[in-house]
Amino acid sequence: MLIIFKSDITPEQLENVRERVLAEGCEAHVVRGVYRVTINVLGDDSKLDPEELKSYEGVTEVISVMNPYQLVSRDFHKQDTEIKVKDVIFGPGRFVVMAGPCAVENEEQTMRIARAVRKAGANVLRGGAYKPRSSPYNFQGMGEEGLKILKRASVETGMPIITEALDSRSLEQVYKYGDIIQIGTRNMQNFSLLKEVGRLDKPVMLKRGMSSTIDEWLMAAEYVMAGGNTRILLCERGIRSFDARHTRNVVDLSAVPVVKALSHLPVVIDPSHGTGRRDSILPMSLASVAVGAHAVMIDVHDDAQHALCDGAQAITPVDFEKIMEDIRKVARALDKTVEVPR
Amino acid sequence: MLIIFKSDITPEQLENVRERVLAEGCEAHVVRGVYRVTINVLGDDSKLDPEELKSYEGVTEVISVMNPYQLVSRDFHKQDTEIKVKDVIFGPGRFVVMAGPCAVENEEQTMRIARAVRKAGANVLRGGAYKPRSSPYNFQGMGEEGLKILKRASVETGMPIITEALDSRSLEQVYKYGDIIQIGTRNMQNFSLLKEVGRLDKPVMLKRGMSSTIDEWLMAAEYVMAGGNTRILLCERGIRSFDARHTRNVVDLSAVPVVKALSHLPVVIDPSHGTGRRDSILPMSLASVAVGAHAVMIDVHDDAQHALCDGAQAITPVDFEKIMEDIRKVARALDKTVEVPR
Amino acid sequence: MLIIFKSDITPEQLENVRERVLAEGCEAHVVRGVYRVTINVLGDDSKLDPEELKSYEGVTEVISVMNPYQLVSRDFHKQDTEIKVKDVIFGPGRFVVMAGPCAVENEEQTMRIARAVRKAGANVLRGGAYKPRSSPYNFQGMGEEGLKILKRASVETGMPIITEALDSRSLEQVYKYGDIIQIGTRNMQNFSLLKEVGRLDKPVMLKRGMSSTIDEWLMAAEYVMAGGNTRILLCERGIRSFDARHTRNVVDLSAVPVVKALSHLPVVIDPSHGTGRRDSILPMSLASVAVGAHAVMIDVHDDAQHALCDGAQAITPVDFEKIMEDIRKVARALDKTVEVPR
Amino acid sequence: MLIIFKSDITPEQLENVRERVLAEGCEAHVVRGVYRVTINVLGDDSKLDPEELKSYEGVTEVISVMNPYQLVSRDFHKQDTEIKVKDVIFGPGRFVVMAGPCAVENEEQTMRIARAVRKAGANVLRGGAYKPRSSPYNFQGMGEEGLKILKRASVETGMPIITEALDSRSLEQVYKYGDIIQIGTRNMQNFSLLKEVGRLDKPVMLKRGMSSTIDEWLMAAEYVMAGGNTRILLCERGIRSFDARHTRNVVDLSAVPVVKALSHLPVVIDPSHGTGRRDSILPMSLASVAVGAHAVMIDVHDDAQHALCDGAQAITPVDFEKIMEDIRKVARALDKTVEVPR
Repeated sequence: MLIIFKSDITPEQLENVRERVLAEGCEAHVVRGVYRVTINVLGDDSKLDPEELKSYEGVTEVISVMNPYQLVSRDFHKQDTEIKVKDVIFGPGRFVVMAGPCAVENEEQTMRIARAVRKAGANVLRGGAYKPRSSPYNFQGMGEEGLKILKRASVETGMPIITEALDSRSLEQVYKYGDIIQIGTRNMQNFSLLKEVGRLDKPVMLKRGMSSTIDEWLMAAEYVMAGGNTRILLCERGIRSFDARHTRNVVDLSAVPVVKALSHLPVVIDPSHGTGRRDSILPMSLASVAVGAHAVMIDVHDDAQHALCDGAQAITPVDFEKIMEDIRKVARALDKTVEVPR
Repeated sequence: MLIIFKSDITPEQLENVRERVLAEGCEAHVVRGVYRVTINVLGDDSKLDPEELKSYEGVTEVISVMNPYQLVSRDFHKQDTEIKVKDVIFGPGRFVVMAGPCAVENEEQTMRIARAVRKAGANVLRGGAYKPRSSPYNFQGMGEEGLKILKRASVETGMPIITEALDSRSLEQVYKYGDIIQIGTRNMQNFSLLKEVGRLDKPVMLKRGMSSTIDEWLMAAEYVMAGGNTRILLCERGIRSFDARHTRNVVDLSAVPVVKALSHLPVVIDPSHGTGRRDSILPMSLASVAVGAHAVMIDVHDDAQHALCDGAQAITPVDFEKIMEDIRKVARALDKTVEVPR
Repeated sequence: MLIIFKSDITPEQLENVRERVLAEGCEAHVVRGVYRVTINVLGDDSKLDPEELKSYEGVTEVISVMNPYQLVSRDFHKQDTEIKVKDVIFGPGRFVVMAGPCAVENEEQTMRIARAVRKAGANVLRGGAYKPRSSPYNFQGMGEEGLKILKRASVETGMPIITEALDSRSLEQVYKYGDIIQIGTRNMQNFSLLKEVGRLDKPVMLKRGMSSTIDEWLMAAEYVMAGGNTRILLCERGIRSFDARHTRNVVDLSAVPVVKALSHLPVVIDPSHGTGRRDSILPMSLASVAVGAHAVMIDVHDDAQHALCDGAQAITPVDFEKIMEDIRKVARALDKTVEVPR
Repeated sequence: MLIIFKSDITPEQLENVRERVLAEGCEAHVVRGVYRVTINVLGDDSKLDPEELKSYEGVTEVISVMNPYQLVSRDFHKQDTEIKVKDVIFGPGRFVVMAGPCAVENEEQTMRIARAVRKAGANVLRGGAYKPRSSPYNFQGMGEEGLKILKRASVETGMPIITEALDSRSLEQVYKYGDIIQIGTRNMQNFSLLKEVGRLDKPVMLKRGMSSTIDEWLMAAEYVMAGGNTRILLCERGIRSFDARHTRNVVDLSAVPVVKALSHLPVVIDPSHGTGRRDSILPMSLASVAVGAHAVMIDVHDDAQHALCDGAQAITPVDFEKIMEDIRKVARALDKTVEVPR
């Protein structure tokens, strides 16, 4: 740890901080540069809180070396984590495709799409029953009825279900019917909800907040894991940039190798919500395989014009087949297995 | 509304959209430019959903003129809204100062700070009992015990309380003890929570999400107001930028005149969390008055080095007095009343 | 075009704008909504300047449908542009690899690296002789001497040269020795320089500004093309985001399908400067192929620890061979030719 | 300085770095944490280049304490710098107002506006003769003819001139006719141009790049000062954010106290280009005074509807008078002198 002081620090101010450091059993080496004074902290500084040190008079910066997360860190757990959901395995050497409607709208629609994506090779069925909508006047999802429909589609097709929980109440239902609990981008720092899913025994897919740093994202996963739930999928779904004219967000594929270096958890890409553009789903899915992600999640709709939610980004079952084909090609070239549904 | 098509649209694709527009009773004027085809929609297009239109084959952009919010809009309610909380009034021609510790840590600390800020001229007591912390291992607030302490400080000093609710459970307590319910930046799009506070009869201060657009912020306020609660304070607390080395966030003061043009609700600035720097609180508070904000909220701590939360940004009671003095000077110069506590 | 007015516009203000629209031979349909008045402009609005219209009293927004660029637009030129530089072709169905040292440091280093990347399969030799450095105290490049070295390496290996010009003076030299003129991210809106390269008869690679929108990037290319130079490569090299801890920038791969839809020009990715991380070069290069880019540019150094510039992102010739191998695998899977150097 | 290593570093890799540190005469303390190994560098580390150290195998981060700039730093020069341009002084305790048309369009327009802003109390005449336009098809400024007009307006009104130089050629003219040389936001890292103005003996106003960090901005000023020109005004003109619907940029007023803490140079705000909204100029100008800026620069136009450039943000001479009045009120309240033109 480095503690950096204003150049005009008083000896007393310096001494206050030095004592605080010594009190935690660390060494405090004072280094006087021409314009800066710093304290180099040697020893185990894990009990020194950077925020607290910053509040001392005269301190301008405190630089800590430790990443703030532990359980999710690759430092703590060297091997890649494999997450098994029924027959599907997320982990190294594999590529999983999750697909389905953005929102469950009715039984027929969901069954039709589920069968189509299953036939094309999808492994997990996605579909929202509780929808976070930026307007209170928009369709908010079918609720439990939607979950029951998903369940029937799951039973028929054999695909496990991934679906979003918004709050305690919906979480109870999602836990009951679903197989993977999705936490959305707007809830990434809903710490109460994170604690709740941390106590459950079903896997969680944690979407990155739309302007969350990688550290904040991993820290949110740490909240879940601190509660005991170690089965976490990290989902990059596009970050906010200064340019929203042509794509809704920027899908941060460069985060994939970084997250894989920092953490042992599998990484999922959501090109549908990430780009919001139908014509970007194919290239971004292929890039997801190539960059080393473990899975992709794709919105499919067979009547996008009447979709109750995000129709602009949904592709047709026919396009989805083509995407699956090309995904298989790239995966094969890089010695990855695309899970074959049974 | 403008609907823009790819240049190679087929007559059939165009016709599909035209029919959809006509079906809602609007006129649809097809304009063929050299490289673009557009449909200019004339008439009341409020029933046409831009998202739905975007999903039609061939459509590239849909531009809607309407702001997505209604109740919070100045179009809907021309006069500035005044919000009265006990003796304190937020509204035009006035400037309110809210101050107190970031987190309630114990009774003594809270009473001491409350008396100090009251003496200096603060009108509302701030203090957190439930703290959203990015690490699960940090102090999470005193909970109900903290609220009881705030209540005692409020009774003694006569200042109403503003304090944050994180979820359903804490909201119940905050509603019981507090006077203004604070919704934090990470919960700005926690739509379940917004709906809950929308049903309550106490004022809400809605912090802007750290990377929320102004439209999303007003839309979140719309969620609250759609539930029946019309007493909303909008709080700008710093937005995320590409530069976090010297200030934690960028306090977006340029949002103040914009929000005041778009909405009738009062605007509050939080320079403490916005900048995270003690030496920025005075200048940013004065700028808040000058730019036309209705209130400011300031972290004060008399022992910042032992603060359990965000000590780096807390100023001392002595500095706070100086800030109050200068706030009064600028306010007076611009014919604004700084509320005098009784 | 849509012109949107404040709700309290006066009849006179509205009439002023209407007359302006009619004066350019367009129709002006006034639409009165509950809270908005708009003018829908029908007809050829290309002579109406949105900026001018915005300055009329009462106007709040002007929405124009036209993209601001023409020559670089796919509307204007439907087929993909192929750019031939000696034996190398940038264009559809092909993938070009450009590689070499970040900066030319001396003859030996440059020859050694040039031979190594050539052997591994690179087609174009990159290397900087004029370096834009954020500190005036850093190595600024070897200048003309460096260009001469590049030229010798080019003659020996048969690879054409891509190298950066910073200003009029260096452009003269770069034009003399180089084959592709690189315009760096900081100069993307150096309009004087763009005009100069627009008058030359050598291809230009235009790097995206680090926070330029896609429209601004294409507009900068329009500057070059308006001068007569139609051979432009568009290079995405990472955009600035709110998170610079783990990667220097976010490489915006989602821009690739978007730019390919908007423009006929080839797109290049620079994963080295984009991520600034050695371990991200392989995955990001593969993702570049998969997402549909036409080329990639990679920093290679055989003694990165003594590199005078950006050593942290340079990979070794051995790693480069592995990258070439995997690039070939992904390209083959997607039916793309990786150019074989002759 | 702190050098941080991967947890699986080899003894040899560590030793390489340690030797490099020792070679510059520093001490190298190796600290082994549970998951990290670091080297704490003690002593004068100014000769160790962080970029070079990062390129060593096994190094993941290098954290340097020194700010990269020296001459512009308050460490180097404690007192506030005062910059005198004819009778006008930029510096502590004063507030300067610069005003005039965005672009010089003709003699009459310029004279009329110059007289009006002079009468209202402006001290410096702004006006562009060379305009950086994002489209090659837009008005690019009157060039030398425009400068001559500015000169005549300056002679008549007694106000010194601030005007922008775009490149070597225009710089020669601007130097000849102008009093303060403006370097625009797009040229903030045009290092060739910075070096040229660094050699001149007229003051320079350096606009912040639209997504430049504060450190990069000060580093650009360092380029100018390293050439010998110490008279630099730093101008904040709005930074790019994720929300460009209602304001073109976010004027980063929170940068003012930060820059004043880091540097001794005066700070100017440009609310006109920063917000792009006429109704934001008054509140943002007042906030500029209150936050501690030393000057403000405002676009004024008496016929904004026919302005050849950026009419949407220009205010009328009548509005400008009102702004001057309120600026004086706030300045007086904070004991600042608004320069009275003579």
